[in-house]
Amino acid sequence: MVRAGIVGTTGYAAREVLRLLATHPAVEVTAVVSQSAAGQALDAVLPAFRKVYDLTCEAFDAAALAERCDVVFLAVPSAKSMEYGAALRKAGMRVIDVGADFRLKDPAVFEKYYKTPHTAPELLVESVYGLPALNRDALRGADLVAVPGCYPISIITPLWPLRDQSLADVPVVADSISGISGAGSALSDAFHFPEMNENAKAYGVATHRHTPEMEQALEQRITLQFTPHVGPYTRGILSTITVRPSAPLDLDTLYAPYADEPFIRVLGAGNLPELKHVRNANFCDFGWVHDERTGNLIIVSAIDNMVGGTAGMAIQCLNLMFGLDETAGIHFPGMAP
Amino acid sequence: MVRAGIVGTTGYAAREVLRLLATHPAVEVTAVVSQSAAGQALDAVLPAFRKVYDLTCEAFDAAALAERCDVVFLAVPSAKSMEYGAALRKAGMRVIDVGADFRLKDPAVFEKYYKTPHTAPELLVESVYGLPALNRDALRGADLVAVPGCYPISIITPLWPLRDQSLADVPVVADSISGISGAGSALSDAFHFPEMNENAKAYGVATHRHTPEMEQALEQRITLQFTPHVGPYTRGILSTITVRPSAPLDLDTLYAPYADEPFIRVLGAGNLPELKHVRNANFCDFGWVHDERTGNLIIVSAIDNMVGGTAGMAIQCLNLMFGLDETAGIHFPGMAP
Amino acid sequence: MVRAGIVGTTGYAAREVLRLLATHPAVEVTAVVSQSAAGQALDAVLPAFRKVYDLTCEAFDAAALAERCDVVFLAVPSAKSMEYGAALRKAGMRVIDVGADFRLKDPAVFEKYYKTPHTAPELLVESVYGLPALNRDALRGADLVAVPGCYPISIITPLWPLRDQSLADVPVVADSISGISGAGSALSDAFHFPEMNENAKAYGVATHRHTPEMEQALEQRITLQFTPHVGPYTRGILSTITVRPSAPLDLDTLYAPYADEPFIRVLGAGNLPELKHVRNANFCDFGWVHDERTGNLIIVSAIDNMVGGTAGMAIQCLNLMFGLDETAGIHFPGMAP
Amino acid sequence: MVRAGIVGTTGYAAREVLRLLATHPAVEVTAVVSQSAAGQALDAVLPAFRKVYDLTCEAFDAAALAERCDVVFLAVPSAKSMEYGAALRKAGMRVIDVGADFRLKDPAVFEKYYKTPHTAPELLVESVYGLPALNRDALRGADLVAVPGCYPISIITPLWPLRDQSLADVPVVADSISGISGAGSALSDAFHFPEMNENAKAYGVATHRHTPEMEQALEQRITLQFTPHVGPYTRGILSTITVRPSAPLDLDTLYAPYADEPFIRVLGAGNLPELKHVRNANFCDFGWVHDERTGNLIIVSAIDNMVGGTAGMAIQCLNLMFGLDETAGIHFPGMAP
Repeated sequence: MVRAGIVGTTGYAAREVLRLLATHPAVEVTAVVSQSAAGQALDAVLPAFRKVYDLTCEAFDAAALAERCDVVFLAVPSAKSMEYGAALRKAGMRVIDVGADFRLKDPAVFEKYYKTPHTAPELLVESVYGLPALNRDALRGADLVAVPGCYPISIITPLWPLRDQSLADVPVVADSISGISGAGSALSDAFHFPEMNENAKAYGVATHRHTPEMEQALEQRITLQFTPHVGPYTRGILSTITVRPSAPLDLDTLYAPYADEPFIRVLGAGNLPELKHVRNANFCDFGWVHDERTGNLIIVSAIDNMVGGTAGMAIQCLNLMFGLDETAGIHFPGMAP
Repeated sequence: MVRAGIVGTTGYAAREVLRLLATHPAVEVTAVVSQSAAGQALDAVLPAFRKVYDLTCEAFDAAALAERCDVVFLAVPSAKSMEYGAALRKAGMRVIDVGADFRLKDPAVFEKYYKTPHTAPELLVESVYGLPALNRDALRGADLVAVPGCYPISIITPLWPLRDQSLADVPVVADSISGISGAGSALSDAFHFPEMNENAKAYGVATHRHTPEMEQALEQRITLQFTPHVGPYTRGILSTITVRPSAPLDLDTLYAPYADEPFIRVLGAGNLPELKHVRNANFCDFGWVHDERTGNLIIVSAIDNMVGGTAGMAIQCLNLMFGLDETAGIHFPGMAP
Repeated sequence: MVRAGIVGTTGYAAREVLRLLATHPAVEVTAVVSQSAAGQALDAVLPAFRKVYDLTCEAFDAAALAERCDVVFLAVPSAKSMEYGAALRKAGMRVIDVGADFRLKDPAVFEKYYKTPHTAPELLVESVYGLPALNRDALRGADLVAVPGCYPISIITPLWPLRDQSLADVPVVADSISGISGAGSALSDAFHFPEMNENAKAYGVATHRHTPEMEQALEQRITLQFTPHVGPYTRGILSTITVRPSAPLDLDTLYAPYADEPFIRVLGAGNLPELKHVRNANFCDFGWVHDERTGNLIIVSAIDNMVGGTAGMAIQCLNLMFGLDETAGIHFPGMAP
Repeated sequence: MVRAGIVGTTGYAAREVLRLLATHPAVEVTAVVSQSAAGQALDAVLPAFRKVYDLTCEAFDAAALAERCDVVFLAVPSAKSMEYGAALRKAGMRVIDVGADFRLKDPAVFEKYYKTPHTAPELLVESVYGLPALNRDALRGADLVAVPGCYPISIITPLWPLRDQSLADVPVVADSISGISGAGSALSDAFHFPEMNENAKAYGVATHRHTPEMEQALEQRITLQFTPHVGPYTRGILSTITVRPSAPLDLDTLYAPYADEPFIRVLGAGNLPELKHVRNANFCDFGWVHDERTGNLIIVSAIDNMVGGTAGMAIQCLNLMFGLDETAGIHFPGMAP
């Protein structure tokens, strides 16, 4: 059994990792770290875990984790990730960061978008971007994995095979809508239930941190006009991507390699995804329409931001890192209804 | 008092017209027409109207309506609208059609998108497109008004002042998301509660009937890549419109005329709308962000599809047609929460 | 025009009073008081009111309000209400308190349930409980009105005509479920969107403050087992009330006086209410089933907690206080959908 | 591997059984039966199952199923269940019926509540009521299991240990609220998204079929006043149960045997459950409050109607029938958020 620790236990990403690991056949959770809940029983803090986990939250201590874990998931706010990540790597631990600190390769870009200098730039070289379809081999030997952002998973997956194609010299427009869980567990007026129910809005227009992450993953060959939105539901990201090819694309051929991907489901022309088919699942579904009138290609993709967009993807990376079956513990269908 | 009749009573658009007219100071509802509910008390069919209306549903009869009404709202499915509209105009009635049959001026375009020939093309000449900001004067004397589609109201309103500006030769991308009420009251697997709750999807990509309506209203100067979506809520449309200007636009000046519009609220640069601020209101709110990095302009607009997108707009047209205060009966704020 | 001031502007109850007064034909809002937003434009704090109100928030000052208002709505937290209410009464103002401080007549009961002594017990004698069906005449001359709690309106309305009837000596069981707006605008982990969406729970079991209020209104003739719940929606209270009559009751006769009530809709035996028919309306709908097998009577009632349960009821009281048409400004049907 | 067939594939109960079996370590799905979808690929009909199941729907044929299955789940409408169940038992198959036809032991009671005579009364003798806490031993050897109704699981579980206690001679009041998935996948005006969103209502008052099922399971020692409700969400049942003990009960002792139950979580006095902690889980959580003022005991319980209330419970029965680990494939925590 792979022994795993989780840091940042009370946040949504960590809760989801814990939820999924509860049924993983080859991973045992041996440590749950929470500064705010240290000393408390996990299931007192998170009642959903009663009769599932018998663990006590502890304070962060890299050396202590090194004794009891083979790998540590970091699910803490930005800036904390690089601090804890550096400490854990120094202690020789393998680390899977579900936060954002190790995704961007250029410290200057990091500082521009995250408004703070990067304190462990040497780890940016080491970290592997955790998208198996792009980096499967590198992930097998990785010691530090940066799990991609949720929006990027939904947008890079369909765009990756198009990055070499001839596109008009205008930005690709990616309008995404996410459930509120993507904003995390921190309270805000914006996400108080009566404020957000039956509501929708755009945010982070032109400034969202996932933009440079996506352009980096696409090897700077595609410029993105990324506009994220939130809608009145808990889980799921739907991304609508408008591409302007210079000439018609043979998408069936371009996407053919995805047939072997365990968690990418290419729906084809005229067949568009719905959130419900990926809810509580690790899949990324996408389909498209070619608009003959305008010459544009419209691709729509769907993921569950908490599973396929965060925790499930993190566990897929763990499976690769430790030589397990890549689908172990995460090969379940969408929950519909 | 203006005496109004409503045809198509049990549908969502008619229900909303009835709901709003219940508090209109200068309109009295004198006839409610429903083929399926003829002979039944209105409040037996629609219990929300108990102790509000004491009316009985009747079958459609243009002559009978002409005796008791000064104006008739048509809220019936496509194709029915042109049949009833022709009969009512023949009987000398003034008509406000909240359906789609009198919006497109070119019968050939109508037939292409609605898959049926237009049977009253002479009325396409007479009908006035019911967007007061564009056609206020024409509406004052109109005998036949075509209330715009819900998506078009949210998209034409911010684009109208830009139609003469120099834009790059690529389609404007308009990604809209609507609440389910926009799909009407007819049952379908797609909109059964457990199928649609916590769900979202795109539909009508490249083929939606509102595309030619919008391009016509914008005088064919803008090509639109319009992708509608539905989300898990009842009311409201949020439209995100990505425009590629050839040179920077002076939006404050371009939108200055809207300061006098009673139901258009220009939020300005960096101030984006939310559905909750227009919920159950007749307003169209919009704001924008200019992305210096890409050169694009991203405009976001919000309406309540049932009020500002349908019934409220229809009543605003009635007010103009009959020389009433333009805001009579519809000047209420958003319902938040 | 009656000139009205509102204290507690940014809370949900005050927002709703403001929303409804925007279309009241005989009331003008002349002052909006908010300690946290003093000096700011109302529509900057609450964007739903743009192009509706041109007012600036001010700090509380009883003398200043007395100059510009004929009546003041208090919509502030418990304990603040009695402080402000006393100051306003001293300044000669008529007051409508939508909070809880003037509902209970016995200061000892108040202190027991609200955990603080009452500082203006003399006003408990003066205050009139604002339920028109019970106290219409007293409300006409009232200077201080205590608007009932939301749950009490839904439960007292159907039980009031039964209070003299012979019931078994066991508590009446009232299980109510409310939308989250009833919990107000203050942030809490419990009502963060992702925590409450798709969730439901009971709370305040055996201790809720509305229990003594209801038993007082029912003249202590009925003991209540009141269990409130919250569900994943914004507005509306559904109350299911299980009564054990000693002998069959003639409900049609007992409820006959309600036929003249403008906002009570008695649906009758076998006809049960739904929230949607009272959404955004001032009505209280109820119906019932007599279970011959068990001998119990099950009554189900529905209100919109924000309108019929708070702001609409407060305005109905204002209408009575100032000799206006009792239904002025609040006689609209339910918003369905 | 146990080979399982599912009949009624496109309904919600069958979909959920399929979803959970996809990760069961000791069960293989070998047949999916659907009259309406016979001949179609399972994942064409239910896209959530793409890249999970490679199965084709077939028509019902008891002999064919007997060749390829060790057990068959029946998830078909009432009346169909007894027909198919009889055919399968005749063919020697072991059967788990998630429908209602084999729950009631008395054919007369069945006919009274289900409005049709029972056509296989001999199987009512054979069938075992699938509530492991009551019937674990009988389930181990069962050939025909009647999975309990969803409401009954939430109500019987906390009441079973109280059935011998001294209670006042009045019905126990059980007010339950369920998500809409409990109403199934059949379309109706009532559950069209815009009709049900932000709505709630009671239904089946005094007549619901689960009442005799619960009283039978409680050995006719408790009379229930059961009032079911639906609320605007997809999954979960919250039941509030008001009991009137003749004398104080020692609940900690009465519920002590549940400490060993793998899927019953006794929260204790003053600790009430929430739907979110059991969402997508097989647990039944409950807690209680003793109201000293009234003498009543209020118990609140929570389940996920689709997992712990249907499919998870059915698989728990399968595990017992086939001597597997009782928790195999269903021991996951609640999905919160």
